[in-house]
Parts: sequence; C-alpha cells; structure tokens
Amino acid sequence: MKNNRLSIHTKIWIENEQGDTVLGAGQLKILETIDAQGSISAAAKAMKMGYRSMWGRLKKIEERTGKSVLIRKKGGIMGGNSVLTPEAKIMVEKFRQVQQKINENAEKIFRETSL
Amino acid sequence: MKNNRLSIHTKIWIENEQGDTVLGAGQLKILETIDAQGSISAAAKAMKMGYRSMWGRLKKIEERTGKSVLIRKKGGIMGGNSVLTPEAKIMVEKFRQVQQKINENAEKIFRETSL
Repeated sequence: MKNNRLSIHTKIWIENEQGDTVLGAGQLKILETIDAQGSISAAAKAMKMGYRSMWGRLKKIEERTGKSVLIRKKGGIMGGNSVLTPEAKIMVEKFRQVQQKINENAEKIFRETSL
Repeated sequence: MKNNRLSIHTKIWIENEQGDTVLGAGQLKILETIDAQGSISAAAKAMKMGYRSMWGRLKKIEERTGKSVLIRKKGGIMGGNSVLTPEAKIMVEKFRQVQQKINENAEKIFRETSL
C-alpha cells in the first residue's frame, strides 16, 4: 500500500474524568455557528437542530468547561442575539490549533511509515 | 479549564484518493477478531455481525489495500478456518504503531496547550 496515494485523517475530542465529552467537533461546530449567525435560534436553524437541543448542549459545554460561553442580549427589533464570550473564542481558537498540530503531526508520522 | 483533569482522545483512519476508508478502527477490529477467533464465521458471531456483511467488508479491505488479507483453509472436522496473511499482520501492526505514535503526540500537544 503506497502511502503517497493514501491520506490519514484524524478526529480529536476532549473528555473529563467522568468520560463525558467536553469539547469535540460537534461542540466546536455549535460555538462556531452561533458566532457566525449571531444567535442561538439562527444557529439552530442553520444546523437543522432544535433550539432546546442546542440550548441543552450549550449548558453542557458550560458545565463541563466551567466557562460561560455566551453573552446573551435580549430584545430589540431583531430579537435576542448571542455572541461568544472572549474566553469561549480563545477556547475555540486553541482547540483548532491543537487539532491542526495533531493533524500535521499525524501526516508526518504516516508519511514515515509505509503501510 | 485545567488540562490535567481532562484527557485528549484521537481517532484515525486512512482514506484513498476517492475518499473511501481503507483502514480504520472498524477494519482493524475485523482483522484482529478473525486473527483471534481463527475463522470468519466465529469472528462474525463474536462481533454480532452477519457473515455476508463481514465478507463484504473484507473484500473492500483487500480491494482498497491491494493486499490479500486472509489465508482460507477449507474443510476438516472443525470446518473452514482463516488466518491473516503475513502482510495483513504487518499492516495491522503498523496501523497500531501509527495510532500509538499519534496518540502520544496528541497528549504532548494537549499538555502544552492550556485550553
């Protein structure tokens, strides 16, 4: 099997001591979509996810990371909107960095090993 | 979020140019189970998978890796049995090594980054 025609793919996630997923692709996608869409309801719609389901997942992210991830602003003509807290943005950015480093390293390890 | 209470987890798989999975946890599990059980039928039973389904997946592994993965011996009092070819054993072993190296490296990268 020639590795140069093959590619390695990685998925990463972070768990707490209880084995619960704290952050992974799913959580990142939710945070990034809220950041891009500007509200939970718009993000839920964009991800074809129920509002309650997304809300529940956000609560879990907050519980498990111990961080507030959203700044919610109520009311106004456009209805409520939400933005990520600065610490949530840093967390998302750092997760992406870790993911990229692991990917790069995985490619290096894979190229060095002929399957 | 203190990383020392958290752990990073990785999943890896190998794709060909068409985006088909060539080897991943599922394929490895099948090969390892056949190796341990000594036959496709015993492995299928152990994995609660249909014989045809397992057979189909084995054919795909052979097609996509370009390797024969099984030596099949027919008949005898115990019925047919199957063992992995030497090259399939090497492939399984190398995949495990790549996985372990990527895991170790992921842990190192994770410890160096405070989420």
